[in-house]
Amino acid sequence: MAGKESSSVPSTPLLKDELDIVIPTIRNLDFLEMWRPFFRPYHLIIVQDGDPTKTIKVPEGFDYELYNRNDINRILGPKANCISFKDSACRCFGYMVSKKKYIYTIDDDCFVAKDPSGKEINALEQHIKNLLSPSTPYFFNTLYDPYQTGADFVRGYPFSLREGAPTAVSHGLWLNIPDYDAPTQLVKPRERNTRYVDAVLTIPKGTLFPMCGMNLAFDRELIGPAMYFGLMGDGQPIGRYDDMWAGWCTKVICDHLGLGVKTGLPYIWHSKASNPFVNLKKEYKGIFWQEELIPFFQSVALPKDCTSVQKCYIELSKQVREKLAKIDPYFTKLADAMITWIEAWDELNPSGAAAGAANGTAK
Amino acid sequence: MAGKESSSVPSTPLLKDELDIVIPTIRNLDFLEMWRPFFRPYHLIIVQDGDPTKTIKVPEGFDYELYNRNDINRILGPKANCISFKDSACRCFGYMVSKKKYIYTIDDDCFVAKDPSGKEINALEQHIKNLLSPSTPYFFNTLYDPYQTGADFVRGYPFSLREGAPTAVSHGLWLNIPDYDAPTQLVKPRERNTRYVDAVLTIPKGTLFPMCGMNLAFDRELIGPAMYFGLMGDGQPIGRYDDMWAGWCTKVICDHLGLGVKTGLPYIWHSKASNPFVNLKKEYKGIFWQEELIPFFQSVALPKDCTSVQKCYIELSKQVREKLAKIDPYFTKLADAMITWIEAWDELNPSGAAAGAANGTAK
Repeated sequence: MAGKESSSVPSTPLLKDELDIVIPTIRNLDFLEMWRPFFRPYHLIIVQDGDPTKTIKVPEGFDYELYNRNDINRILGPKANCISFKDSACRCFGYMVSKKKYIYTIDDDCFVAKDPSGKEINALEQHIKNLLSPSTPYFFNTLYDPYQTGADFVRGYPFSLREGAPTAVSHGLWLNIPDYDAPTQLVKPRERNTRYVDAVLTIPKGTLFPMCGMNLAFDRELIGPAMYFGLMGDGQPIGRYDDMWAGWCTKVICDHLGLGVKTGLPYIWHSKASNPFVNLKKEYKGIFWQEELIPFFQSVALPKDCTSVQKCYIELSKQVREKLAKIDPYFTKLADAMITWIEAWDELNPSGAAAGAANGTAK
Repeated sequence: MAGKESSSVPSTPLLKDELDIVIPTIRNLDFLEMWRPFFRPYHLIIVQDGDPTKTIKVPEGFDYELYNRNDINRILGPKANCISFKDSACRCFGYMVSKKKYIYTIDDDCFVAKDPSGKEINALEQHIKNLLSPSTPYFFNTLYDPYQTGADFVRGYPFSLREGAPTAVSHGLWLNIPDYDAPTQLVKPRERNTRYVDAVLTIPKGTLFPMCGMNLAFDRELIGPAMYFGLMGDGQPIGRYDDMWAGWCTKVICDHLGLGVKTGLPYIWHSKASNPFVNLKKEYKGIFWQEELIPFFQSVALPKDCTSVQKCYIELSKQVREKLAKIDPYFTKLADAMITWIEAWDELNPSGAAAGAANGTAK
């Protein structure tokens, strides 16, 4: 792997032509200035949310394409209704139009964090390292990521499992403002995350986790079609569960297909807490619903013939329709949208649809 | 909870009268000098391995009881054959004779480590904090232990699970010499663990891990009878799998009874790598066997009427006899020893046997 762990900006950017950075936004992208040394070599896909007549300014020198709502409607036609409006869930449109193997997505209120030595953290480089090294979903390694320099599998780790599984997702964390729900924000308005945990670890098979979309990378070829951020925001009864939904779906499909999900490093600096009152309004149905959604996802079983992400996702949409519609009619609409999403994905990624199937059968 | 996180030696030692420190050894316990400020208030149970005529010197001022092989034979009679000889697995005799609620066990080549700020780590205090706060085995919290100061559950963590589960085990780690198996020691003779990971986390339900006995604490009332370190060393075909065996058994029983297992902080300083050639001789059967043992433990199902640790352990011994004897006759002998262990435990802990049952039914 190129790049030394100790240099913030590697001389040869990793995966320069194989990775897109997806940014959902409603404002000028001044935050990119701080990321310039790290993001400059990469292509950006900006998904403009809200009023499409507004002009989003992107700092000079970045290579980007920008899609607003009019573009999404034009490209997807009637299928555009699966892409959320007035919610950062719209970012998943960027995953769909990308032609690259890897995606990194970041929020526009996230800045470069520093490690305990004061060095700026190249978050993207760490994500790429996470994705390019295997995961260990079948047995827990107590010294964390055994593929890191200076680490290995400990005594008692079965040798047959040391090859690991391909890594599909790298979930990064946040210093400063932690990713809390509205009730926790209200109860602990002044809490800041100052704990730098120097570890990357694999979420074990069969364990769900709350996947945050703020600082997230994934292998689009391995898991892209599962990274649907659902129906949120304008016209929907719920918000702020877009990434959670994607995380639950992604994790059960990764578990089924033998793919790994990592969490931990890298950190970004999350600058601003969103308004807890607004958040509570968006979240409150989710807070109820997740009590039934988690047991649903914990018990989902995908049949053996689901050998591609697409097949898994369609099967999942069926089970959502069958088992979750009783919670709220919203889940019927969501099940429909999940199918539309896969149709739109396959339309825009005709070779990817075949590749997806091939990935699955290769397991 | 008493004691500030920033002070190495708390003015009021936590659980002073409720915790025993168990140390297996064959040599004078000079290593205790370095631990004096931390261990001095506690009672030590020293299990002397090997030649019982040898005198083990314990530094002045420590409160201890010491058992050699003659003592073990005298106390357990014919049941003493379940306690290993010439192997640190003998330490579990100390768990059995303790009358306290908590156990901390440490090897005599482990010293006080320093955190990145240079402060000496009070390992025992951290273990106690781990044991006294709940675990989160049912859903992964991406900011690690949510009960630590400055941390909490992140957005998307189901509220119904935030009460957590009682913590039965706290597994600490090692700086300097990592706990590697013989093949890894041979391949990487110079590898040292210098990575201080500032986290405690719960091993999720359904996930096994390699439990190391070097720096380990547990709640004896909740899980004690499962902490049997097996038949190792003198007269046995295997060594260095004592703690692994205990870890696999403990984890499946904790999962069944709704108890949590934590790993991470605290670190100790592991001073000396054991001889990899000697280790290879002890381990090599284990290296083969574990490839069948792990799938066995991954698929163990304990019936609902196993409501105490003892009942779970007896049931587990039956399954070991049924399903593992085909690997090697050793496992029949081990299944017998598992039963002897429980009989001996209940003899020495007559009220504990009843308490164990009550714990179980309360779940």
